[in-house]
Amino acid sequence: MYGFSPAATARILLPVIRRTTLRRTGTNLSIAARSIANSSFHRDEGVSRSSVTPPLPSRAHNAPYPTRTHNCGALRLEDAGSKVVLAGWLCPGRKAGKKLAFFPLKDANGITQLVVQARDNDSTLADIWEVPSESTVLIEGVVNARPQSQRRPVPAGDIEVQVTSFTLLNRADTELPIIPTDVFNVPNEELRLRYRYLDLRRAALSDNIRKRSQVSHIARTGLHEHGFDEVETPMLLKSSPEGAREFLVPTRSPQQPKQLLIASGAVDRYYQLARCFRDEDGRKDRQPEFTQIDLEMAWVSWGPPTPVSDSIPVDGFSREWRIGGTEVKDVIEALIRKIWHQVEGVTLPTLFPVMTYAEAMARYGSDKPDTRFGLEIQDVTKIFPEAVQAELLRRGELLEALVVKREEGSPFRVAADEIRQDMVEEGIEQMDLTRGGVADWMANSALLRELGVIHDNVTSNALLSAFGEGHRLWLTSRKRTAEGGSTPLGRHRLNVSAVAQQLGHLKFSPEPRFLWVTEFPLFTRADSDKDFLAHGRWSSSHHPFTAPMWEDIEKMYDGRINEVRGQHYDLVLNGVEIGGGSVRVHDASMQEYIFSKVLQPLQRLRLLITMLALLPQLTDDEKACFNHLLHALRCGAPPHGGIAIGFDRLMAILCKTESIRDVIAFPKTSAGTDLLFNSPAPASADVLQQYNIRPVGN
Amino acid sequence: MYGFSPAATARILLPVIRRTTLRRTGTNLSIAARSIANSSFHRDEGVSRSSVTPPLPSRAHNAPYPTRTHNCGALRLEDAGSKVVLAGWLCPGRKAGKKLAFFPLKDANGITQLVVQARDNDSTLADIWEVPSESTVLIEGVVNARPQSQRRPVPAGDIEVQVTSFTLLNRADTELPIIPTDVFNVPNEELRLRYRYLDLRRAALSDNIRKRSQVSHIARTGLHEHGFDEVETPMLLKSSPEGAREFLVPTRSPQQPKQLLIASGAVDRYYQLARCFRDEDGRKDRQPEFTQIDLEMAWVSWGPPTPVSDSIPVDGFSREWRIGGTEVKDVIEALIRKIWHQVEGVTLPTLFPVMTYAEAMARYGSDKPDTRFGLEIQDVTKIFPEAVQAELLRRGELLEALVVKREEGSPFRVAADEIRQDMVEEGIEQMDLTRGGVADWMANSALLRELGVIHDNVTSNALLSAFGEGHRLWLTSRKRTAEGGSTPLGRHRLNVSAVAQQLGHLKFSPEPRFLWVTEFPLFTRADSDKDFLAHGRWSSSHHPFTAPMWEDIEKMYDGRINEVRGQHYDLVLNGVEIGGGSVRVHDASMQEYIFSKVLQPLQRLRLLITMLALLPQLTDDEKACFNHLLHALRCGAPPHGGIAIGFDRLMAILCKTESIRDVIAFPKTSAGTDLLFNSPAPASADVLQQYNIRPVGN
Repeated sequence: MYGFSPAATARILLPVIRRTTLRRTGTNLSIAARSIANSSFHRDEGVSRSSVTPPLPSRAHNAPYPTRTHNCGALRLEDAGSKVVLAGWLCPGRKAGKKLAFFPLKDANGITQLVVQARDNDSTLADIWEVPSESTVLIEGVVNARPQSQRRPVPAGDIEVQVTSFTLLNRADTELPIIPTDVFNVPNEELRLRYRYLDLRRAALSDNIRKRSQVSHIARTGLHEHGFDEVETPMLLKSSPEGAREFLVPTRSPQQPKQLLIASGAVDRYYQLARCFRDEDGRKDRQPEFTQIDLEMAWVSWGPPTPVSDSIPVDGFSREWRIGGTEVKDVIEALIRKIWHQVEGVTLPTLFPVMTYAEAMARYGSDKPDTRFGLEIQDVTKIFPEAVQAELLRRGELLEALVVKREEGSPFRVAADEIRQDMVEEGIEQMDLTRGGVADWMANSALLRELGVIHDNVTSNALLSAFGEGHRLWLTSRKRTAEGGSTPLGRHRLNVSAVAQQLGHLKFSPEPRFLWVTEFPLFTRADSDKDFLAHGRWSSSHHPFTAPMWEDIEKMYDGRINEVRGQHYDLVLNGVEIGGGSVRVHDASMQEYIFSKVLQPLQRLRLLITMLALLPQLTDDEKACFNHLLHALRCGAPPHGGIAIGFDRLMAILCKTESIRDVIAFPKTSAGTDLLFNSPAPASADVLQQYNIRPVGN
Repeated sequence: MYGFSPAATARILLPVIRRTTLRRTGTNLSIAARSIANSSFHRDEGVSRSSVTPPLPSRAHNAPYPTRTHNCGALRLEDAGSKVVLAGWLCPGRKAGKKLAFFPLKDANGITQLVVQARDNDSTLADIWEVPSESTVLIEGVVNARPQSQRRPVPAGDIEVQVTSFTLLNRADTELPIIPTDVFNVPNEELRLRYRYLDLRRAALSDNIRKRSQVSHIARTGLHEHGFDEVETPMLLKSSPEGAREFLVPTRSPQQPKQLLIASGAVDRYYQLARCFRDEDGRKDRQPEFTQIDLEMAWVSWGPPTPVSDSIPVDGFSREWRIGGTEVKDVIEALIRKIWHQVEGVTLPTLFPVMTYAEAMARYGSDKPDTRFGLEIQDVTKIFPEAVQAELLRRGELLEALVVKREEGSPFRVAADEIRQDMVEEGIEQMDLTRGGVADWMANSALLRELGVIHDNVTSNALLSAFGEGHRLWLTSRKRTAEGGSTPLGRHRLNVSAVAQQLGHLKFSPEPRFLWVTEFPLFTRADSDKDFLAHGRWSSSHHPFTAPMWEDIEKMYDGRINEVRGQHYDLVLNGVEIGGGSVRVHDASMQEYIFSKVLQPLQRLRLLITMLALLPQLTDDEKACFNHLLHALRCGAPPHGGIAIGFDRLMAILCKTESIRDVIAFPKTSAGTDLLFNSPAPASADVLQQYNIRPVGN
């Protein structure tokens, strides 16, 4: 299957990367490319791009590349002379002599004719000629008008693009079960259905899928114009007695189908208001069936380099987005702005704040910070004597504190006094910032005892001078590298806020506080079993398709799993996670490495079930379920990423209700039962007989 | 539960009907009402409105009423002086002295203040005062501006309507488990969920549901503007190994939820692009999961009387719609026109042809006639001698024929010659219209033998003079009252067309041929078991919620079940049924009568499963499943009707493909398997154990 030797792959990949991002100068594009290479993308100084040499044969480009400027159907005569960046599937080329070749480049929007000329000291023509058809490539070039006689009445049919450089984004297998450009030999239907992600790349089929989208939107718009409201009705209802046969429906989300769809190239940007199923007990205010605004985009990228201004915090929050998937971010922000503008009459800021996971955990002790009130957590390690700092360092820990100032007008002042030591979580120690209060605390602190601190005036003075006298403080230690969704002090912060709200002292402005949280750890130690911990087993923090940050790829291949950050992003509103997504792995060998080497088989251990209902850790059997995805990646999958917004939760916030049941026409109880339709109900023995099953014990 | 005596009910119902439709003159409305009473709605001369006195206490109005002119939130100051028709839920009234009362009338769009004044010889005030709150009523009246001080900044808050007459459409129970207008005593959540159709009538909740619809459409529109395509992904996929728990999902459509939704009043017009499930073997080109454009509308009516011009056939087709649900018809025609205009650039006619079921069966031998070619079937009974006609009458049969003229240019001429007697269905006799041909036929005809015809020249001459010599003719007998979806001659007609198409002689113009088929028999004899036939058991032709034509209600209560026509409509395109719907029964006592008296229990007989996955015939257990629907009808359900359009089939026609698999992103095979996701797959014993079930035999 691997028709290319690793050496040949490297020959195509590496020079092109260098050329694309470093070599060319004097154009806007190359400035952008250079900025990418020199600034934000080189933040982690320890990893330079050329050192990314994974141990497995890499066949995909995982480092940054310039954002496409147009899709393959967009260029017109008036664009002649422009420098452009295009991405798409490479179709079989045609040579015209030794120094010239033509390649159609296609995507869901059309086909652009590429012209590649051999030049001295430039291997572009030789390199691109070796790329298998159906690979995804990104090219830079200049638009030329085609000679009058060669113009075609199709999108982009009047122009061609003279290629100046190209990047092989994802190499396709040389032997594909279906050749999407071959309109004369359409394979039999069984083959077409088995490899649907290739069949969907055929124009005959992808035209239908897009027409379907068009018609459904015309129908919806027409119905809204006629005064209709769209209402979602339940799917999970009682068995109809003696009705037609039924289906055992897995807990599901459209995660895999949507990635296969984008891999097919049938559509450039997919969305669905998708009904999802999940069966979880005891989760308050969750529904077994729920709706997501689910979307996925091909060709996501790092975008233009973040302007320096965005990295300067505004109101304490940065706007700097250092991972891929900028197109997803832009679309979601535009969508949220549109909804709030049209429904609430509120104009939201153009850019939402962006916080790394590490920052969110440090400042708010939560991966979904509620930033409607301050009360930030502070790292107080440095206040303590050097010996204590050394001991903390040895343990890989730090000391952090939450301080409530006893100031006039502070909404937390009274709340802080209401909270007694026995009301706070174990491990958090409470003190009054007075001579006596600190002395009391030092005399009784288990924390200090553990760290070997003796009752000294130095520490006491340092605390009082750092925060001033008269206030209240909570202190605890935690691991330097944050883990999980919240810290004890983060939960305590929310408790203080809740008490202040109950007392009527804390009121939030109606203005919604949106926030992105990014750069999560890609993997989480499977810590539910100490034995496994010892063996260093890992699970995916979100799901196994999330791509690592490109700066951390080498760490992943080197086994420094705990240091790898993912290109994952959560959208948080008022302290509630309303959506999450990621840039996906589009590199089959990387995906296989993650399945096989990182997510090692972990038998008989019930793991956290992600929202996506995909197991974070995989057995061999489970990996087999992803074979079609792996194959789709090998057939020229474009870089892609997406997100899912919890529509029920979003609506609950818009409707200012606490319960999502108030925004669902026919909801279920928190126990998952439907009191209106009396569902679920026992299936009769007759019904079960149809499925050849019977209750255990019968 | 029946707080009204039948006499009291009649007192409210009947005078109002008469007043509404007959008494008032001199306004446009009363002209419309009179036309309704006198023309199209009195087609069936045997039934006059006043004779509709069902044996069960009727609590709902089932006869025609004028169409509402505005919804309850639509009227403004500038409408002052207009005569209007409004429909809605009656809220608790307030008397101002003995001769004046105010009633708020509400619907999903707002609340209009009604003013009712007592007048001599007019019981309107007394009658309306006796109507329980939450009943649905239709009023006629005149818009007045409210005094400046009483105006409210809400929809319709500047005006009030002086009531001139009212119709009690559906009386609500006097004791409702939830009082939707009581904003101070919101019941506990269990009660709210159990009677969701009443809870949804509360403004607090219905506002949310409509806001949800608004936001989902903004989101969709925004995504389309950003170049996204909506693609539906499969729900029926393989069990994820060790994933979260799964659900046994019944074959389903949103039929019951959507009726409950409309009964609630939360929305006036519901739609959903709804995913439906169905498990049927051996149906070619069907999918176990499929999508419908599903809609339902409150307050559907007979509309303004059909202009005489519509009843004059154009190109052989009438445009006359004689049943209720005109609003559904209008919306669907507008929607289809919009789709064809925007997607195909084709302008469709303003009115689609309408054909009764009886006419479709007589002319085309099909309830979904393909009218792209003529070749109509002819009733030839009258050509035969009177003795034969008498025998046919005795049998309740007729003779019908299909004739292909052997004329130059006829696309069927060669096809007709290709068809041999052994290729036609049993019971159809073939002859050449020549002396010899007719003689041959008469000598061998089983049909004539059965009818006792001797070989005579009279019949022979009559045939030849009726059709002319030289042509080809097929003849058969059938029941005078058509049954089922097609007749033998109707199927034969399609065969002749298929042969002509194969020969390349028959080509259809690309112009789509839309057609409504209406006035289906409401009930079908359950003929799959001769014993039951003898007992006269009936099943619903479509589903048990379809309303009878109002002219046939008395026949239904009189037990003349076979004569009852339903307010059902099918939309047919090029001979394919692409949608169907009906006006629903909104009268609880009628619905109970249909369940109990017409659809008698029929045990252990596997019946035709309707597209709606609702059993046409019902056991007691099955009836219990509809208890919540019956209760919803008793809580003031408005008259309503809807339709579902098969979106996959519609798209297949728009995409000019034979298979709906070509318009579904991830389809299943005709055997219902998914070759991409390898679904369905066996569930492991472990998985089954979670549900306390195991395979039979283990």
